[in-house]
Order: sequence, then C-alpha cells, then structure tokens
Amino acid sequence: MTIVPEETLESSPTLDEVFAAHHGGKLATGLTASLADARDLAIAYTPGVAEVSRAIAADRSLAATYTWAERLVAVVSDGTAVLGLGNIGPRAALPVMEGKSALFKTFGGLDSIPIVLDTTDIDEIVETLVRLRPSFGAVNLEDVSAPRCFELERRLIEALDCPVMHDDQHGTAIVLLAALRGACAVQGRGLADLRIVISGAGAAGVACARILLAAGATDVVVLDSRGIIVAGRSGVTGEKALLAEVTNPRGLLGGPDVALAGADVFVGLSCALLPEELLAGMRPDAMVFALSNPDPEVHPDVAARYASIVATGRSDFPNQINNVLAFPGVFRGALDAGARRITEEMKLAAADAIFAVASDDLAADRIVPSPFDPRVAPAVSAAVEKAAKGRS
Amino acid sequence: MTIVPEETLESSPTLDEVFAAHHGGKLATGLTASLADARDLAIAYTPGVAEVSRAIAADRSLAATYTWAERLVAVVSDGTAVLGLGNIGPRAALPVMEGKSALFKTFGGLDSIPIVLDTTDIDEIVETLVRLRPSFGAVNLEDVSAPRCFELERRLIEALDCPVMHDDQHGTAIVLLAALRGACAVQGRGLADLRIVISGAGAAGVACARILLAAGATDVVVLDSRGIIVAGRSGVTGEKALLAEVTNPRGLLGGPDVALAGADVFVGLSCALLPEELLAGMRPDAMVFALSNPDPEVHPDVAARYASIVATGRSDFPNQINNVLAFPGVFRGALDAGARRITEEMKLAAADAIFAVASDDLAADRIVPSPFDPRVAPAVSAAVEKAAKGRS
Repeated sequence: MTIVPEETLESSPTLDEVFAAHHGGKLATGLTASLADARDLAIAYTPGVAEVSRAIAADRSLAATYTWAERLVAVVSDGTAVLGLGNIGPRAALPVMEGKSALFKTFGGLDSIPIVLDTTDIDEIVETLVRLRPSFGAVNLEDVSAPRCFELERRLIEALDCPVMHDDQHGTAIVLLAALRGACAVQGRGLADLRIVISGAGAAGVACARILLAAGATDVVVLDSRGIIVAGRSGVTGEKALLAEVTNPRGLLGGPDVALAGADVFVGLSCALLPEELLAGMRPDAMVFALSNPDPEVHPDVAARYASIVATGRSDFPNQINNVLAFPGVFRGALDAGARRITEEMKLAAADAIFAVASDDLAADRIVPSPFDPRVAPAVSAAVEKAAKGRS
Repeated sequence: MTIVPEETLESSPTLDEVFAAHHGGKLATGLTASLADARDLAIAYTPGVAEVSRAIAADRSLAATYTWAERLVAVVSDGTAVLGLGNIGPRAALPVMEGKSALFKTFGGLDSIPIVLDTTDIDEIVETLVRLRPSFGAVNLEDVSAPRCFELERRLIEALDCPVMHDDQHGTAIVLLAALRGACAVQGRGLADLRIVISGAGAAGVACARILLAAGATDVVVLDSRGIIVAGRSGVTGEKALLAEVTNPRGLLGGPDVALAGADVFVGLSCALLPEELLAGMRPDAMVFALSNPDPEVHPDVAARYASIVATGRSDFPNQINNVLAFPGVFRGALDAGARRITEEMKLAAADAIFAVASDDLAADRIVPSPFDPRVAPAVSAAVEKAAKGRS
C-alpha cells in the first residue's frame, strides 16, 4: 500500500517505510560543544555556569545572548485541527509538530521544540504559554481549530512579548499571495483587477482573504458551507462578520455557483469539492488554487481543462503551495530583527520575497519556487527582518 | 581572572572563555533523519505523517513508539534556588538547566529540554506540567527552593504518570550513599555502625538522611541553622518534624559541637563552615563529606588532618560527589523500564551500582568513580531498570 500516488515520486513511500521513519520520533537534542572532560564541565556546568546565571540575574536582557531560548521556536498545538484529521488530541498531533520543528531546523536553521497541550481551553493555553515564556523565543501556533484559533492567536500576541504566528492562517496566506503574484506576472494581470473566490472561512480562508485585500485585491468573495459570506446571513458572526465588512463588494447572494460565475481566481481551502460545471463558468485565463490536502477540491488535470494556471498543496503536481516556503524565513527574520510582533508588513514582505525568488524563471507551471530552492528562506528572512526594522 | 583554582585543571577557564562557551546557549535541536528532498518530506511530514497521527489517535500508547516525547526529559525549574545563587528567577536559571540537559544527553543518551517557569506558585507549576504532559516523558526537577521542593515533588509524582525526580534531593542522596559505601569498604566498616551527622536540612540534607536510613544507617543526626533537629524544638515543622521522628536516636540536644563530638561521618550540605576544633572532636578514621559548592564547609586539606577520608563536590579534589554519576542513569533506567515512578528501591539500586563500579579499584581517595567513567551510566541504568521491573 502506498500513501502517495505512484506518478509522484520515483518510488512512493510505503506505510512500513513511513512508520519506520517515525520510530522514536524525528527530533533529538544536541550540544553546541562537547563535554569531554572536567574542564568542559567546569565551563558548561558548575562552577562556570554560575557566572553566566549571575550575569543574567543582574541584566535579564543577557538571556537573549547566553541561552538558546530567545532563538527557540515553540511549535504549539492542542491537537484540535490536525491536518485533515480533525480533533485527534495532543499525543496524536505530536508527530506533526515534530515534523514542523524539523522543518524549522532544516529550512530556517532555527532550533525548535514541539509543545502539545492537554487542554483546549483558550484561557488555559494562554496562561500556560505565559508561564513558559522564559523557555522560548517565539510561538508557531499549529493545527488549532477555527474559530478558536483567531481568539487564541490574538490573545497570545497580546500576552507574550515575542513573535507569535498561527501558521495555518498566515503561512498559507503568505504563500498564496506569492503564488498569485507569480500567476499575475505570468499573465500580465494585476491583483486589483481579479475577481477572487475563496472557498472556506476557516483559519486559512480568513487569513488569505485578509492578506489579498491588504495586497491590493479589490473583489474577494468568501464561501463557507452555507454559501457566500454576507452581513446578516445566518452563521455570519465573529471573524466571518468582520470578513463580510470587507469582502463581497458586489453584494452577491447565493452559493458557489453565484460566486464562481465570471470569477478569475478560485482558492480552495475547505475540502469542499469544486464541480466541473462551476469551473466552466469562470472567466478565460482562470486561475485555480485547489489547496486542500491530500485531496484537492478538483483534480489538477480536470482544472487544467478550464484554467490556465493550476496550483495545489501537493508535491506531486506543479505549483505546490507549501507553507514551508514562508514560515522558516518569517520566524528567522523576526528573531534576527529582535521583533516582538509579526506584523502585516512583515507578512507582505515575505510574500514579495518568495515571488521575487520565482520571478526570474516564471511560467504557468512555475508560479512559486520549489520548497527546496535554497534561495527562498534567506530571501524571506532578509525581507522580514528589513520590514521588522521599518526599512521595507 | 579565573573561576576555578589554578591547582585544578591544566589551564583554568577564564571568564571570557566561559561566556564565549555559553554564547547562543548550549543546546540545539536536530533531526534523526535528513529532509533532503520531496520524498523525505512526504515521509516525515505530509502526507506520510498523517498515517502516524491517525495510528496514535486510534491507540494512544503508540505515542511512546512514534514520538520523541516518552523518552524526553524535561528539566524543570522555577529558578528559586539556583546553585548557590538563590532565587534568581527562571531566565537566569536557564543556563544551568541547559547544562543539565546537555549532561542528560552526554551521559545518559537522553534527549532533554529545559522548561523554566515564570511562576513560583506550586499549584500553578503542577497545573502547567499536567497540561504539558503529552510533550515529555519524565521530569527532572531542579533548583527549586526548600521546603517548597518537597511538596512540589510529591504533588507532581501524584499528578503525572511518568518518572519525576528532584535531582537536588535524590541525585545527591544516591551519590552520597554510593560514596559512603565506598568509604566503608575502604575502612572495612559497616554503615549501621557509623554515627553520621548531616549539616543542612534543605533539599539535599533531607534526602540524604532518608536514603542513609533506608540503606541501613542507624544513627543519623541532622543539623539546621538552629542546631540539632529534634521533635518539639522551634522551627521543627513539616519535613523537619518528619525527620525528627527517624533521626537523632540518642536524643542529642544542642549545636554542631554536640552533634560532632564522637561522630564518624560529617556530611556538609548547608554552606555552614565546619570549624577545625569540631573536626578534631570526631572519632578516629572519620569521614568528611564537605559538599557545598563552590566553597566546601572545610577545605579538604584541613579536613585531611583529622579525617581519613575526605570528599567534596569539586572536580579539583579527589572523591568528587557529583550528581552526574546518578541522574543520567536513573532516568535512563526508569524510561527503559517504562516505569511510572522512581521508587526508593530504584534509588538504592542506583547507589549500589555506582559503588559496584568503584569497588574494583577502591582507595581512600577513590571512593566513587570519576564522572567520566563510561561504565557508570550504563551500570546505573541497568540496575534501575532491573529494580523498576521488580527483579532487584
């Protein structure tokens, strides 16, 4: 049994291979210098370490210099919305968080530890991270269910004097914006001229709508399971009510058929299937971002019959919209800058940097760089650091 | 300026060297396998990781097999009693906890992360660690002030279904017992025949008294800053009142002079100086364990004028009583056994194992093995695992 289609990789990983690779977990702690003899011990531990502790006690800011904490990303989850698996709890979420920490190290050069919490109460999660604050330097929130994730992220940003970002929201949004810029460049079009439909008003849908508007999009329509989000409709409360104020400028009412008729861009972030007949109603040169994983809203081969640019979240098709293009560089840049917040300007700068890396070799099937393009993380990091320092 | 006496090491570390070695912290996270291409990503992250998460969601016990958590030691401190520096707070405590995590890795082969807490409230510390429980597999409590440490350890042992040990208590106690066994073997004496005085009723003093009694000592007298601990004396409450019930069998009343007159063993764990005239009142073949760091209760050269065996906590004199002889193997053995508790039997087995390693080459200046003796941690781990499984 294989878990990735045969067409994809030279040899698809088997389930046995996957479980073997996860045996014992995917992370390890290591030392920055060896402890080989009594002299090493006297430096790294007592009595030497006492001098370092004394110095930090006298000047707390020295913790940033003489501990690992202020460069350490905590990957935090309560396990309530893990991948497409739903609320599977903190223990089952941990392999994903370990993987995320591994990506931080590999792509961002940042140390990272997973923190999975045996509580889903927002007050308790905030309280716990406030108590843990001296142990880390940034929080990557991950796989927290919507709409809880919006309040949790907002409250953590208020409570913690360090960068906090819910990657399912903003990582996705940053990469989507970069990809859309790439697609626009290929087609010679402007973001402001596009009619954009986002299917899904969860963590990613909301953040994507917001970043596209911030980047200059003018016509964004968001769908949830009941249809187009519009003020006054039932179920349009909280985040969705705020979204209703800034989206759907033509005041559309109805379902996906109404939203997609004459649309230029479809962004799928909801697992809801996109029927072929709706695709057929989009305008010429349509762009389809079918981002649900592992099953896109529409198969890319089907989408390609109607759209001139097709992207998915999968590694086995062109134009992979992968958060790893964003989050390692975003956190690295924020930490390099000593930033206390990850601002909208920093996110926009990250998207621009990803687009800039792709821009020397753009094509309809190359609107974003490969996740393994070594130029991406340094470019994102530099752009975010610059934006954080107000020199963007 | 040097921080360790010149006599010690070939070249004493300078302050500059110490701070340079701590720059950026002493720990790093790493990957157990590289993420070099799309296939690696598909195994370690999506879509492969979803299968692992799904399996753990169906059978929570699989988290022990497919995550790092159940082999991960959290080194937890609130920074209230750091080395000899007192209550310097979590940030200033962190370099010590990083060092401890580094020792776990080097000597026990265990991954370990420091958790420093911005609260000193026992309820809140317990609550926090309960919420974090899915993130780690064992707790090494460190540098928590007495008497709070007794209640905190007891409550954590009740609240968490994993090994918990306050190393300042039990690590010290285990190594002291091993050293005393070594000293007894050198002199051909029995533990039960010794009059033992422990100076200090903090974390280490209490635990040392208890393990010596559990190992067969019959005459233990404990001193605090007001003198011999005896029932009814002012200040003898809580842990000290419990200690009064099982120590001081001859009902001594008074100060260090009364306690030390005719004593065989002095164990210093309080930083209180041991005056030479009191040393002179000990019995022939006295043993002096002057364990305060970095300044022993009495200089070993002075102690040697009156005692036939002298030990300190320092690496620059013979007979170093160093917790690193115990804790890496204790936690390794407990985790290898899948133990939920670190029992008294496991601690006694650890002490016996350390003694056994030393026993083939015992001398008055070699009553314990070197911290760098590679036989120690595996021997301790095996003994603890065996004791945990009830086969001791």
